[in-house]
Amino acid sequence: MTYCVAISVDAGMVFCSDSLTNAGVDQVSTYRKMFRFGIDGEKQFVILTSGNLATCQATIAKIKNDISQNIRPNLLTVLNLEEAADYVGDISREQQQKRMVDGKNFEASFIVGGQVRDGRHEITMIYPEGNYITTSEDTNYLQIGESKYGKPILDRILSPSLDLDTCAMCALVSMDSTMRSNLSVGPPVELLILKHGDLTPKDHIRFDEDSNFLRELKKEWDEHLKDAFRQMPPLSWAANWDKSNHEQSGTS
Amino acid sequence: MTYCVAISVDAGMVFCSDSLTNAGVDQVSTYRKMFRFGIDGEKQFVILTSGNLATCQATIAKIKNDISQNIRPNLLTVLNLEEAADYVGDISREQQQKRMVDGKNFEASFIVGGQVRDGRHEITMIYPEGNYITTSEDTNYLQIGESKYGKPILDRILSPSLDLDTCAMCALVSMDSTMRSNLSVGPPVELLILKHGDLTPKDHIRFDEDSNFLRELKKEWDEHLKDAFRQMPPLSWAANWDKSNHEQSGTS
Repeated sequence: MTYCVAISVDAGMVFCSDSLTNAGVDQVSTYRKMFRFGIDGEKQFVILTSGNLATCQATIAKIKNDISQNIRPNLLTVLNLEEAADYVGDISREQQQKRMVDGKNFEASFIVGGQVRDGRHEITMIYPEGNYITTSEDTNYLQIGESKYGKPILDRILSPSLDLDTCAMCALVSMDSTMRSNLSVGPPVELLILKHGDLTPKDHIRFDEDSNFLRELKKEWDEHLKDAFRQMPPLSWAANWDKSNHEQSGTS
Repeated sequence: MTYCVAISVDAGMVFCSDSLTNAGVDQVSTYRKMFRFGIDGEKQFVILTSGNLATCQATIAKIKNDISQNIRPNLLTVLNLEEAADYVGDISREQQQKRMVDGKNFEASFIVGGQVRDGRHEITMIYPEGNYITTSEDTNYLQIGESKYGKPILDRILSPSLDLDTCAMCALVSMDSTMRSNLSVGPPVELLILKHGDLTPKDHIRFDEDSNFLRELKKEWDEHLKDAFRQMPPLSWAANWDKSNHEQSGTS
């Protein structure tokens, strides 16, 4: 499986992805799920992939090929993020349909985020059908893959005014929770930070399986979370709040 | 949907359930999903339900009916938890099959936990097919329904030597995270604590929608979690740990 999350706040965007893929538990391999395309100083796009690996790879290969062959449109000729999302959605559908036999499912989902010149930065999530949704003032993040384990921390921490380093830490903690609770999501973990207006990105980090940082982050978060939990008021406290709801006996 | 979790540690067991059911977003209603059966001082069983509401209700109705009509076996005549799980699994399958038309799915899952006399206390999770798995020394908890949002906190906190109040708080925090991230899980929240050897349970609490306790717990956990998050070392720290993995430029 996969877990990818992309966060959009006022200050810019953060992308985070794992790198495990599996077809059954005995066929596990490592593939990058984060791809950056751009013209420095002009436009930048980041694509995250989830779903059928062949469809993901075929889609990314076609995007690269269109750029290198200068076929139009390609990801570097689009004028805004909507066009980019439409373009990627079309390719994804095309690749799925090419291989469709007897209703077999080769579905894939994508996150595409980016900025063109002085336009807004934005993130879209492209469904297997090729249509897509975007982030908004109220929805700061989009996820693909195993999204549920890592959702609570995003829901609690993220807000539009948050700085990008805090958003990145939130994405990494969300990834850590997912890796801990689901064996099929795992390192290397990639992290890419795209400041609003900075169209020459430098902050693309890859944390390998033996990354001290990932190990320390896991340890630190574990300790802090346990501390937080220890500080919760004792349960006996409950009786004082909701006395009338106590049921004392009887088969219920 | 539903979220139920049951925890078994050395000191005893904790059960926690929500009470929302829905068939589409415009047909939401409130039903208890926690049922206790027992003979005080002799045996106690707690059943949590998830899945098709008609199957859940028919199963619980049959269990109650078998007891009141003194049909054998019934849940109060079984000699141990395995027999109880088999009995509930059989009824569940029977109820599903009775209504099966054209492969329509009326599946339900159950958690059954309890203790008979001076035997071990134990928890089982019964699949729609009627077979079941139990907790063990390494697996302290079982869940049914929307289990993923609330799993990370259980994975981090629970251990066999934990006291029951802490386990109960962990179950409530797990429930809180699930309710926050999934609209279809909601109060009233029921909590039942069964100490090992105490076969006359008293600690069955129901927190209603307007429960001050649930509101305070949500607020406290939110604050403590945010504090924990604020205490995480800054991300710039990452560069020192995994310097060699930095990628500085280039389309990747």
